[in-house]
Amino acid sequence: MKMSQSFVKTLRQASGEETTKNGALLTRAGYIHKEMAGIYDFLPLGLKVLENIKNIIREELNKIGCEELLMSTLQNPEPWEKTNRFSNQQVDIWFKTELSSGGELGLAPTHEEPVTELLKSYVKSYKDLPIHIYQFQTKFRNEKRAKSGILRSREFLMKDLYSFHTTPEELDDYYNQIMQIYQTIFKRVGIGDITYPTFASGGIFSKYSHEFQTLLPVGEDTVYYNEDKSIVLNKEVYSPEVLNDLGVKPEELQATTAAEVGNIFKLQTKFTNPLGLKYSAEDNTEKEIYMGCYGIGVSRLMGVIAEVHTDDKGLVWPESVAPFKYHLIAIGDEGTKIANELYEKHPDQFLFDNRDNLRIGEKFADADLIGLPYRIVISDKTLAENSVEITERSNGKSKLLPLKAFQKNL
Amino acid sequence: MKMSQSFVKTLRQASGEETTKNGALLTRAGYIHKEMAGIYDFLPLGLKVLENIKNIIREELNKIGCEELLMSTLQNPEPWEKTNRFSNQQVDIWFKTELSSGGELGLAPTHEEPVTELLKSYVKSYKDLPIHIYQFQTKFRNEKRAKSGILRSREFLMKDLYSFHTTPEELDDYYNQIMQIYQTIFKRVGIGDITYPTFASGGIFSKYSHEFQTLLPVGEDTVYYNEDKSIVLNKEVYSPEVLNDLGVKPEELQATTAAEVGNIFKLQTKFTNPLGLKYSAEDNTEKEIYMGCYGIGVSRLMGVIAEVHTDDKGLVWPESVAPFKYHLIAIGDEGTKIANELYEKHPDQFLFDNRDNLRIGEKFADADLIGLPYRIVISDKTLAENSVEITERSNGKSKLLPLKAFQKNL
Repeated sequence: MKMSQSFVKTLRQASGEETTKNGALLTRAGYIHKEMAGIYDFLPLGLKVLENIKNIIREELNKIGCEELLMSTLQNPEPWEKTNRFSNQQVDIWFKTELSSGGELGLAPTHEEPVTELLKSYVKSYKDLPIHIYQFQTKFRNEKRAKSGILRSREFLMKDLYSFHTTPEELDDYYNQIMQIYQTIFKRVGIGDITYPTFASGGIFSKYSHEFQTLLPVGEDTVYYNEDKSIVLNKEVYSPEVLNDLGVKPEELQATTAAEVGNIFKLQTKFTNPLGLKYSAEDNTEKEIYMGCYGIGVSRLMGVIAEVHTDDKGLVWPESVAPFKYHLIAIGDEGTKIANELYEKHPDQFLFDNRDNLRIGEKFADADLIGLPYRIVISDKTLAENSVEITERSNGKSKLLPLKAFQKNL
Repeated sequence: MKMSQSFVKTLRQASGEETTKNGALLTRAGYIHKEMAGIYDFLPLGLKVLENIKNIIREELNKIGCEELLMSTLQNPEPWEKTNRFSNQQVDIWFKTELSSGGELGLAPTHEEPVTELLKSYVKSYKDLPIHIYQFQTKFRNEKRAKSGILRSREFLMKDLYSFHTTPEELDDYYNQIMQIYQTIFKRVGIGDITYPTFASGGIFSKYSHEFQTLLPVGEDTVYYNEDKSIVLNKEVYSPEVLNDLGVKPEELQATTAAEVGNIFKLQTKFTNPLGLKYSAEDNTEKEIYMGCYGIGVSRLMGVIAEVHTDDKGLVWPESVAPFKYHLIAIGDEGTKIANELYEKHPDQFLFDNRDNLRIGEKFADADLIGLPYRIVISDKTLAENSVEITERSNGKSKLLPLKAFQKNL
């Protein structure tokens, strides 16, 4: 991307309303734009980060045979009424709307009911199971207060996976498999070392569910953790009984704030039974179906990564999710010529700051703010040694790299 | 994709409500699922078609430097009130909703207002222009009647591109460039020969806009066309004056039905002026900005392609948008072994019908219904000649192809 031809610009300052690092930095660096509290646009750089995160999740899920689909936002109340989740008294974060031809609709805050209802057209016998389907879909939640940048939004991108099984044991196995895969995903996007599977309430059908909590000062949750024992639990389940279950004493736990980036939940028959999703077994008897759901807040995850990977100069993206690998800056005519040649051959690898109305110091400051993994400078000085200067954003270390070697590795 | 492990199945019949080919066939073949009238889910095969269409559009737009972003669905009324388009009296297809903290919101039916408002944060001087930004975004339109499968939906995927220029001449040039690119896009997705740029109303700021109309029996529009002169006009602008403009006589025109798959529109200053988007010129004077908008209904386009490319056995996808290139069927143990080997090496190229509870005739019927470009059969008979049988879906012609040659080309 050539910055002279891109509409995305860094801003001197974000609106004073952005009180978190992710909201302020992502806005200033030109990744997101706030429409209203909790409602954001993803500008070209931001959309690239979002797509990189999606692709990592997609890769890991497809590896184990999950199938991607895309369900609708607009929701027929019927299936939700069967599980008693359409009324605002039961679920207080609905956005509701109305058909001009009559009838109330909801904007999906999640998809357990419609996905269960959907499968009634396709699942008949044991041969049709198991099923594991997921989507990247925009969810809508009518939060009373939306704050913290893109950590808690009213409109946000979610990955929601649903699995359906013939036995609770098969669901248990699958749940454990997803637990592993989530850890791989959070590691790949750069928050593995501070993100923990966390015991949380399992509702009426399971003793526990698991959240994935990233330890973070601006997180809205409180968790208790013991690093040596690798035990983390959400405040909501902190009780003598649970501590006993987990074999940990109160004095061994430390309280801290955290942000939930994912959750996995054994729903068992909570949705399949009221919605009437059954299968016929080999002996032709009708049997219950066991369901699990597994979420990752994709846009929130982007916010968490931004919140964690920063310094006083700006963002410091992990290479796996960075919108580009290299931030290219040329100095002088010959440097500009070589930079243009590099860019033309590998446009997808470079954000090329070819703007002609900025001082070099301003370009360097923007590069730090935008936070790509490597800054590449090409100047008469570097070319005198047939080299480019490469600077790692994460530690500021610079070195000269032979131009040919650099080109070869692109 | 292995059909035994996929939840998508063909259905004996679609609901009787599906009166169009696209609605009925896409449902029966497992591409889409109807939630309510005008509201559909895209199942794994359908999502792949949608993504293939998106990638063709994206490729063509990125080639000329358009930048992709993603704006919000939830709409602040403010910018829409400035152009008098928020009231239901003025625009009668809004879905409206309410914030729990108070205040009405809309679900975006299009994005001219918010994109113009957005640019006020980024456009200051002539150096910041031109700008061309687009998105693939779910639009919501509260249609009184939604019918025709995915040709007219209440929730649908749209590609909307917006351009901003310093002069009307630059807008004209860009408009003509997009006119060309749209023709390339419609050609690449397989409807180029029956899709025409069509004169339509230009509103108060331009004499004409252009729609791209695909001649189609179930189309909801009426157009007049003369193939020799390559002139097509929408019924809405059919008048002696317009015919005179275009140099065509009434008796030279034929009326037919058509479906609009795209439109391009010179908005001039219709949105930029009321919303106050200006730029400062080289001489520091404040100047007006000229805007164009360019839409393609992506999910509708999928419906149109499905409507056009069918025969009495089912869908007949053009290779460019087909979810997979090959439909793989094995007969006998050795055929199954070789088919499995092929599939494991190239899982993205095959829909592998490895279901063990179907007769071969049923598998062939499903292959015709699903409509991938090539059916590959591997059996003892083909293997006796070290070959696979390849059958073109579009003309039913079969031939044996040496297995090695086939593998080499994968």
